[in-house]
Amino acid sequence: MSTEFQADTETGKRRIALLTAFDGSAFCGWQIQEGQPSVQQAMRDVLIRLTGEENVQLTGCSRTDSGVHARAHVSHFDSATRIPMNRLPQAMNAFLPTAVAVRAAREVAPDFHARFQAKGKIYRYRIWHDPIRPALMRAFAVHLPGPLDRGAMAEAAALLPGRRDFAAFRDAGGTVRSTTRTLWRCELDFAGPLITLTVEGDGFLYHMVRVIAGSLVAVGQGKMTPADLLRVLASGDRALAGQTMPPQGLCLENVRYEPDLFPGLGDTDSVY
Amino acid sequence: MSTEFQADTETGKRRIALLTAFDGSAFCGWQIQEGQPSVQQAMRDVLIRLTGEENVQLTGCSRTDSGVHARAHVSHFDSATRIPMNRLPQAMNAFLPTAVAVRAAREVAPDFHARFQAKGKIYRYRIWHDPIRPALMRAFAVHLPGPLDRGAMAEAAALLPGRRDFAAFRDAGGTVRSTTRTLWRCELDFAGPLITLTVEGDGFLYHMVRVIAGSLVAVGQGKMTPADLLRVLASGDRALAGQTMPPQGLCLENVRYEPDLFPGLGDTDSVY
Repeated sequence: MSTEFQADTETGKRRIALLTAFDGSAFCGWQIQEGQPSVQQAMRDVLIRLTGEENVQLTGCSRTDSGVHARAHVSHFDSATRIPMNRLPQAMNAFLPTAVAVRAAREVAPDFHARFQAKGKIYRYRIWHDPIRPALMRAFAVHLPGPLDRGAMAEAAALLPGRRDFAAFRDAGGTVRSTTRTLWRCELDFAGPLITLTVEGDGFLYHMVRVIAGSLVAVGQGKMTPADLLRVLASGDRALAGQTMPPQGLCLENVRYEPDLFPGLGDTDSVY
Repeated sequence: MSTEFQADTETGKRRIALLTAFDGSAFCGWQIQEGQPSVQQAMRDVLIRLTGEENVQLTGCSRTDSGVHARAHVSHFDSATRIPMNRLPQAMNAFLPTAVAVRAAREVAPDFHARFQAKGKIYRYRIWHDPIRPALMRAFAVHLPGPLDRGAMAEAAALLPGRRDFAAFRDAGGTVRSTTRTLWRCELDFAGPLITLTVEGDGFLYHMVRVIAGSLVAVGQGKMTPADLLRVLASGDRALAGQTMPPQGLCLENVRYEPDLFPGLGDTDSVY
């Protein structure tokens, strides 16, 4: 089998990147947590089984909170496996829980890092804005029955893109030095009862997308104006922003690398 | 409270129609089956609880098979309840399993019948056409990994509308006299890996949509040509048609009445 990159001369291992979709409903999140079902643990168990290697270390592009979904989560691990890359996804899926699907696998450079080399991410947050709760969508959208000024929400969303200090839009718990991030895109889409927030940026602070969603909801509920939102951001005061919306509305839709890591498999209009 | 229709002079009961969405994954279907969880039983239990009436009879527009979903299932029952129609859905939803949501309720004429007066139905059947299985969509689409000639499938679908004898496209088990039905619409939509079949007709035989889907798949797999499909129909021979596709791909999207029963709440582009 031809390999794109050189294997480690001592271990014979090469670095492999995986693109994975998962329904986060039944998981404590991506990251391994003792005694709880995580996507990382499920994938690692399968990789150990398939490769016969004892200590597979799988590194993800991001932790996701309990209940958060992903259509395109990227992770990497090192292995001397001889399973061809085009067969690895199905080989893994045969043993993974049905809520997880490895979509693609490829060799990457030995210094590739799923988290540190991620240039940007796209998330969507879905709100079910209707007096009646969702039935079929209940695992993938958050029900918000009251009135919302959708126009004001869209106006507020359009103000947010830019390079800014997002300290006011994150919850305690993150471990980053700088709270400055670039938001390239912040848009709302309305389709009947479904409100979809799409955000794209070079990085997101802890709970940042869920706080953006909650702050836009606060604007929709008339608790603040679109202009207030910029003042809240400038204040750096988390207490002034909207609430952290529940996890099940959130989905990691794509992770950007340069050059493109999985061409054609990125943001697929939420269909995956 | 003003009522649109006259209550029964003896019982004080009026006829009420309900519009319901449900995720069929955890149900044996709509219809009550001894010892199994049905949507009808869940709704009936809640109606008995809310109305205080002992023997509520709930009649549906159609049975649905185990695992089949609905975004707009219509049913009716008689009750002397004083719960206002605009409050009944939320009152019911407070007690129903989260997989079921009553979307709307209204009084109807005493002779209204959810099944006999249905003038037409829209169903969708969703196929996940990709080597990789779906994760987030797994309860709402059927995975079909092999090659499919999508163009041939679309061509075959376009041949089917019309008033025809659909005997070849139904499984044993139905109890209808005539197997002639009018299909107004039979279309395929392609969005990445997702193939959506939309059918609209004045009525559907037992498993008919799932056999149409299976027959279009047979065309896509090159097992028959689009023209063959019409010959199969003309033969009336079920054995010549495609297989019955699995239930979870199927969803009842709308039921038509004249005049419109729940204006504006019909086919909502599958968002519900």
